[in-house]
Amino acid sequence: MTAPKSSGNPLAIRGGGGPAVPGPGAVAALRPLGLEQVRLHDDGLLGQWRRRNAEHTLPHCVERLEDSGNLGNLRAAAGESDTEFAGMWFADSDVYKTLEAALWELAAPGADPGLRDFVDDTTALLARAQQADGYLNSYYTVAEPGGRWLQPVRSHELYCAGHLIQAAVAAGRTGTAPELVELTRRFADLLVERFSQVEEVCGHPEIETALAELYRLTGHHPYLDLARRFIDRRGHGLLGGGRFGARYHQDHVPPRAAEEVAGHSVRQLYLLAGMVDVAVETGDRALLEAARRLWDDAVRTRTYVTGAHGSRHRDEAYGDPYELPPDRAYAETCASIAAFHVGWRLLLATGAAGYADEMERVLLNAVAAAVSEDGRHFFYSNPLHLRTGHTNSGEESAGHRLPWYSCACCPPNIARLMACLPAYLATGDANGLQLHLYATATIEAGPARVQVRTDYPWQGRVELTVTAPQAWTLALRVPSWCASYRLLIDGEPAPASVDAGYLRLTGPWGEGTRVVLELGMPVRQVRAHPRVDAVRGCVALARGPLVYCLEQHDLPEDVVLEDVLLDATAPLLAAGRGKGPVVVTASGRAPDLTHHPLYSTDRHRPGATPLQLTAVPYFQWGNRGHGPMRVWLPLSGTP
Amino acid sequence: MTAPKSSGNPLAIRGGGGPAVPGPGAVAALRPLGLEQVRLHDDGLLGQWRRRNAEHTLPHCVERLEDSGNLGNLRAAAGESDTEFAGMWFADSDVYKTLEAALWELAAPGADPGLRDFVDDTTALLARAQQADGYLNSYYTVAEPGGRWLQPVRSHELYCAGHLIQAAVAAGRTGTAPELVELTRRFADLLVERFSQVEEVCGHPEIETALAELYRLTGHHPYLDLARRFIDRRGHGLLGGGRFGARYHQDHVPPRAAEEVAGHSVRQLYLLAGMVDVAVETGDRALLEAARRLWDDAVRTRTYVTGAHGSRHRDEAYGDPYELPPDRAYAETCASIAAFHVGWRLLLATGAAGYADEMERVLLNAVAAAVSEDGRHFFYSNPLHLRTGHTNSGEESAGHRLPWYSCACCPPNIARLMACLPAYLATGDANGLQLHLYATATIEAGPARVQVRTDYPWQGRVELTVTAPQAWTLALRVPSWCASYRLLIDGEPAPASVDAGYLRLTGPWGEGTRVVLELGMPVRQVRAHPRVDAVRGCVALARGPLVYCLEQHDLPEDVVLEDVLLDATAPLLAAGRGKGPVVVTASGRAPDLTHHPLYSTDRHRPGATPLQLTAVPYFQWGNRGHGPMRVWLPLSGTP
Repeated sequence: MTAPKSSGNPLAIRGGGGPAVPGPGAVAALRPLGLEQVRLHDDGLLGQWRRRNAEHTLPHCVERLEDSGNLGNLRAAAGESDTEFAGMWFADSDVYKTLEAALWELAAPGADPGLRDFVDDTTALLARAQQADGYLNSYYTVAEPGGRWLQPVRSHELYCAGHLIQAAVAAGRTGTAPELVELTRRFADLLVERFSQVEEVCGHPEIETALAELYRLTGHHPYLDLARRFIDRRGHGLLGGGRFGARYHQDHVPPRAAEEVAGHSVRQLYLLAGMVDVAVETGDRALLEAARRLWDDAVRTRTYVTGAHGSRHRDEAYGDPYELPPDRAYAETCASIAAFHVGWRLLLATGAAGYADEMERVLLNAVAAAVSEDGRHFFYSNPLHLRTGHTNSGEESAGHRLPWYSCACCPPNIARLMACLPAYLATGDANGLQLHLYATATIEAGPARVQVRTDYPWQGRVELTVTAPQAWTLALRVPSWCASYRLLIDGEPAPASVDAGYLRLTGPWGEGTRVVLELGMPVRQVRAHPRVDAVRGCVALARGPLVYCLEQHDLPEDVVLEDVLLDATAPLLAAGRGKGPVVVTASGRAPDLTHHPLYSTDRHRPGATPLQLTAVPYFQWGNRGHGPMRVWLPLSGTP
Repeated sequence: MTAPKSSGNPLAIRGGGGPAVPGPGAVAALRPLGLEQVRLHDDGLLGQWRRRNAEHTLPHCVERLEDSGNLGNLRAAAGESDTEFAGMWFADSDVYKTLEAALWELAAPGADPGLRDFVDDTTALLARAQQADGYLNSYYTVAEPGGRWLQPVRSHELYCAGHLIQAAVAAGRTGTAPELVELTRRFADLLVERFSQVEEVCGHPEIETALAELYRLTGHHPYLDLARRFIDRRGHGLLGGGRFGARYHQDHVPPRAAEEVAGHSVRQLYLLAGMVDVAVETGDRALLEAARRLWDDAVRTRTYVTGAHGSRHRDEAYGDPYELPPDRAYAETCASIAAFHVGWRLLLATGAAGYADEMERVLLNAVAAAVSEDGRHFFYSNPLHLRTGHTNSGEESAGHRLPWYSCACCPPNIARLMACLPAYLATGDANGLQLHLYATATIEAGPARVQVRTDYPWQGRVELTVTAPQAWTLALRVPSWCASYRLLIDGEPAPASVDAGYLRLTGPWGEGTRVVLELGMPVRQVRAHPRVDAVRGCVALARGPLVYCLEQHDLPEDVVLEDVLLDATAPLLAAGRGKGPVVVTASGRAPDLTHHPLYSTDRHRPGATPLQLTAVPYFQWGNRGHGPMRVWLPLSGTP
């Protein structure tokens, strides 16, 4: 049986919106706003990140796609050059992610016209590289021409197709590059034709969420059906064990039945994203519950305090429960980005604030740390402790950010996330607005207009100017880290209580009602569950949503970072200079332990020389030269 | 220039001795005894291990060599079958290690005649598989016939040759299978011819120590020269970076200049063994000092409390200094065995007791734990903590001992170590005997005879009956873990002080002088250097040379192992039933932390329900069913 072709039929493109927009029939608690409805201003941190991404990260990625041969691979596939295939066999995906980033970015006012050229040129190149039947993959065109569909475990063909589709969805939603949508649908139709009946599945999930999104864009149901099939085919041994076993690619148990996250973290999280997308579009409550259960397991037992997922280097995998070593944290940037994506989807599906809490945590700590201040250097792996004496063992445990990677999945992934940051701030419909992430921004949401001014996350004061109809509710997230807050409406203290993580204000609204939310941000000592053996006797310093760290840079030269003990009871002070970055000062001590034996029956008594400590936001580490860093600080007085 | 052939010349074989016997001109502080001079009795732990090895492990290895195709590979290389090559490309090395084990074992009284058949048959097979020019490697004969010497980084050809040579050295020293010595020398001569002038080096060290040993056996100097060249060629980039970088195979810095151990632990330790062998045979003090420096670095910053080396799974490597996670300890069995071998060589070279301390620690803990009680199941990786909820991710982090491995380097390595245990107990010459490891044994050393009776390591009492000439010194090691001891001579307390780790008794000796050494063995709480973050706030329980652990097996069903806290001040009692195993009892508590949040600002207050704890020797763990285990125990009262 041949599935019906969709690309020729007159289904309307559902434009507008950002990433992951539930369709009209979806079971979703919240409705996203479009990129066109939210404008991030450059004087806030998120706005600065978005701008840095547009001005530095994205152009850098575009350059690197050329230099690293990714675009050359596609030219070879188009028969326009005979250069050897360069890079990873899934190198096309870097092109697609960069393309997606550029498409989201083009929706912003004042976008660089050069980006438009990149989009047009790349779209045209893809059209030329595409085969007559719709197939598009440079590796299996150029390097292994007979190998199409032969190695589902390893080939990443559907993974690459998924990223192409996500780029096309960005094109469709932003109304840019309709040719990209068209060529992508021809490929997607080929996938429907090939995979609807053949019991195969890709070793690396990604196609599931992509097809569900393409369904949302086009309304073409076979895409959604195929996404569902791919999910339900997992866990039945179709992929075989492989070097790292069935868990590595989540093939050890059907996703609906899984109780724990397992295996390669990015694969697991991309699969979760697809599960949520399919669940909300098909009204499949059991599938949604399975996704929530797995997410809860990850957040409850296998997530770093920075929001990062996945501790193991060997197979880029989740470890056992509570196996969260800071120094060997793998914490891949792509897993952090994927966690943000899953959090977003679960937030839309359920409206539960906890998902927004996780989005904030991972964005402001793990994701943010992966990019250098200049926007052109990146971490792939994001440890929470870089040891004194750390020896760089290449890309996989680089002690500093690198401009690119031989497996360059992370940098363009950062680019596409940062390019659509505005879309993640808020959700809303005619009845109200839900504000999830705080940043200086202007939000036009149906009947309402909200101006947000804040120096968040450096300060907890969020000022809003609201113009809205009377029957309209503003929901403001009170982050889970916040123990006390204050609300003012038009200058007057207003009583308000948190309902499931949100303050819900129902008006009456005037023309420019002034709402001020003051979130208390004392410096906190965060402790880990005692089963996280790797950080026993330590605390992490946090303020607001930000996790802090010590860097060797801020210590006297003769002090070894690992010898520093934090005085448990001394005051922790936040110190900033007006607007912008805030550091944390504390006191501690640092006995010289260089000659202490590795094992002994003696209890070590730390010396008493006090030491002034300065902790900086984790996301800023490694920007003042290279050197040791640690998030979890041992307390003096540990037995 | 062609190096002179040695195999045809009339150099005498220097028989006798066990592994690593410095030659007559070597600069060595101590002289090993031969296997024929030391008899381990079966009523002591080491004697039981030797016997179990002979009766179970060795026959098991022989069976597995057949079942896994290792012998079939050699038959194919001999042109006697056309089966496909099976297993790893260095599968021959498993045959050689088993052969070496069998040869050492045949030196023991009452050895199984079946072993003799295995030795004869295998020697004959090797002779038939050997090529006309002396080359012998089944993979590069059968599977990649044109590939000889083309891939020094990866091929393991010299590694395999090294293990063949070590088997031949065992044959020569035990006076068994002269044909094996002969065929091996033909290969070794080919190596001298090929590699003396060609600037190449093997990706996996092993050939260095092997060639030095072959020199010791034969007196043929080109073998030693080539060993030295291989060492000095390292660190000059001959191997290229490879997937894990130059450190992986110790090619990042010349071994003489290295300050820190690095890379793949087994490679590093095999290289160290070769460095010491070459240094003592050539009187190269600088090379010996380099080896000592690297060893000291490993023991000071990168060794587990069980004596195991190497924490990282990804590249089977040493981590950064103090990076010693118990749960993700890689702690490969082969690295433990290699550490024992290096310790032995440094002990012989220097006479320093610290090396014997390390030999004892790694043998009685890490190496011993790698074998099941039945002698037929093995750990490859030896964690110090198996978490509740650990999921077996295949061979590389197996939660229980497996009968064999696809890369089966460890089991036959255990077999060859256990088969020559007697050789490691003592050293000596006409002037005296140095007793390093305590076990019930009879030692005939030149003019003296020493009977040792002891229930060590379960009890610290060592009884010796000494018959020796007057000008003769008995040195008894007082282990570094021992804080108090007592010496009796013919029943009378004798004054004695420890000189550099040994009690040195000079007589007068009669016919059967009775010496009793009582080593105090209270249970100890061992603490790690504060830079070992992974075990902060924890202690390991130890008694005598043994490290203990808690197993889930000994806890109430509703208690999660990770929740157990040890009461820091409660008494620790040793409990045994007469002769044999001793367990340690302690008290603790175990609050149920299942619902405790992963991160919070609350300080957790443990519940007060007391819990009786039973700790068992680490080396015995996992023999009563599968389940969680941990060595490092959190203390109650950690902040």
